[in-house]
Amino acid sequence: MELLTNAADRLAAAIKQKGSPCAVGLDTALNFLPEELARVCTSIESAAAAVTEFNYRIIERICDIAPAVKVQVAYYETLGWQGMRAFSDTLKYAREKGLIVVADCKRNDISSTAAAYASAYLGEAKPDGEAYTAFPCDFLTVNGYLGADGIKPFTDECAKHGKGIFILCKTSNPGSGQLQDLKYGDGRTLYETMGGLINEWGADLIGKSGYSSVGAVVGATHPAQAAALRKLMPRAIFLVPGYGAQGGKVEDLRPCFNEKRSGAIVNSSRAILCAYRTEKYKGMKYYEAARRATEDMAEDLSRI
Amino acid sequence: MELLTNAADRLAAAIKQKGSPCAVGLDTALNFLPEELARVCTSIESAAAAVTEFNYRIIERICDIAPAVKVQVAYYETLGWQGMRAFSDTLKYAREKGLIVVADCKRNDISSTAAAYASAYLGEAKPDGEAYTAFPCDFLTVNGYLGADGIKPFTDECAKHGKGIFILCKTSNPGSGQLQDLKYGDGRTLYETMGGLINEWGADLIGKSGYSSVGAVVGATHPAQAAALRKLMPRAIFLVPGYGAQGGKVEDLRPCFNEKRSGAIVNSSRAILCAYRTEKYKGMKYYEAARRATEDMAEDLSRI
Repeated sequence: MELLTNAADRLAAAIKQKGSPCAVGLDTALNFLPEELARVCTSIESAAAAVTEFNYRIIERICDIAPAVKVQVAYYETLGWQGMRAFSDTLKYAREKGLIVVADCKRNDISSTAAAYASAYLGEAKPDGEAYTAFPCDFLTVNGYLGADGIKPFTDECAKHGKGIFILCKTSNPGSGQLQDLKYGDGRTLYETMGGLINEWGADLIGKSGYSSVGAVVGATHPAQAAALRKLMPRAIFLVPGYGAQGGKVEDLRPCFNEKRSGAIVNSSRAILCAYRTEKYKGMKYYEAARRATEDMAEDLSRI
Repeated sequence: MELLTNAADRLAAAIKQKGSPCAVGLDTALNFLPEELARVCTSIESAAAAVTEFNYRIIERICDIAPAVKVQVAYYETLGWQGMRAFSDTLKYAREKGLIVVADCKRNDISSTAAAYASAYLGEAKPDGEAYTAFPCDFLTVNGYLGADGIKPFTDECAKHGKGIFILCKTSNPGSGQLQDLKYGDGRTLYETMGGLINEWGADLIGKSGYSSVGAVVGATHPAQAAALRKLMPRAIFLVPGYGAQGGKVEDLRPCFNEKRSGAIVNSSRAILCAYRTEKYKGMKYYEAARRATEDMAEDLSRI
């Protein structure tokens, strides 16, 4: 495959190649581990190692059918720096296996601090003269509450290193409307205002695919709002959480895609990681169940 | 001292005891290190160890004059999991030295994920049956863009474990107004709406001091807006960044305090950590310069 230096191009190519817009969410909570791994968790170190083992086995079984993984850092932070080592190892292993990696960290701060975050995930630090990326990924999720100068350090690193970001726009949680749906004087909601800014912030990072490396997080649980946002951000890839366990259904996802049935990547975490516990995949090893659940999700999404 | 189980009470007591509302910001970027520590940074491990050493020496020299430290995680994340170990060690050492510790991480997510963050910083995980907190602190900064159900997991942990949070309200960066100053249909700005919610979310966590363990981040760079917010959130302690290096002056800070000249904690990072590089503190060791800069800041703030 041609070397694609734009993150949106890489993601679009991976979705095309795998024939599926499914991201496997590696939100590996300790209570998701099967008995065989749970019982070796006798310390923080062994718990972090068990999480890594679980992720590696899943990655190996889904890397030929899924274009991307989304790794939610919160679950790794509960295990301290040992958990962050598991997080880092997971990101690296997924990239080695050819997956597009989304680090779901929702980072945000003023510009000098945002620049530090950007270098940790998207750029390079050189503590000993050697280029080094602490938590290497293709995309990082970020929160735009601080405005343009809190976003620019991220887009600067994206431009330099061929990386991307997904900015929170309309989130999938039931209470997302409390602030995001409030209407400004000009009649636009906060999420629409954010959508307009995301479109603007991504204008300089559009690749050959026509998509920008600045994407948007738009929950699967708000189809009407997703339709409005799709128009506001024609170039943005939507990262869509909320499918499956959070209640988003395939028909709700339709408006997140554009007229070419493209431009979105849909995440599922629990429904894949814990598939082995359900009636449907009973008796399978957790990684086999995860693969089958990923296939079934791709099948479900193909109805779009 | 009486055991204070409410985080706001502990912070208010520490401010009173030390006679100063100064938080020392341990935003230890590698380029802040003095030559003697910078030259031993020959690997990620040694860089993380040098940062830890720098922080320990500063903590030892300011712990009897400052009530709190604020530790900005972004700088630690640039050094990967080794950096997160330095972050964790720094938090623990500062707490051992009797300081109130603010983990400045601006975390945010939907409720299940927010619960994982909350347990990592404010609560407990029990991977091996033993209670364990990955990154122990007294307060965590969080971003409220997701609304009430993204905040509740944090306040739940605060109530259980006597911890607190500071929610981003009006940030100190030049571009904070792009979204935060927009006016809703009812004439209120986003930051005022957020302020009202912070006041509401903190209502059940008010301690004997009269302050709530749910505080607000209000930048020193916006005095007029701080005055309006002070009225909206009479019970909230304001965490005030932007003093010093970011341009906030002591007269700008006045509105962040209440009529009792209380209710705010003012952070300074670079001006303290890099004091040893300035003309004023020339020739001093970095930790001596940091102590003197902290004393001078307390003196400056006493004019309020």
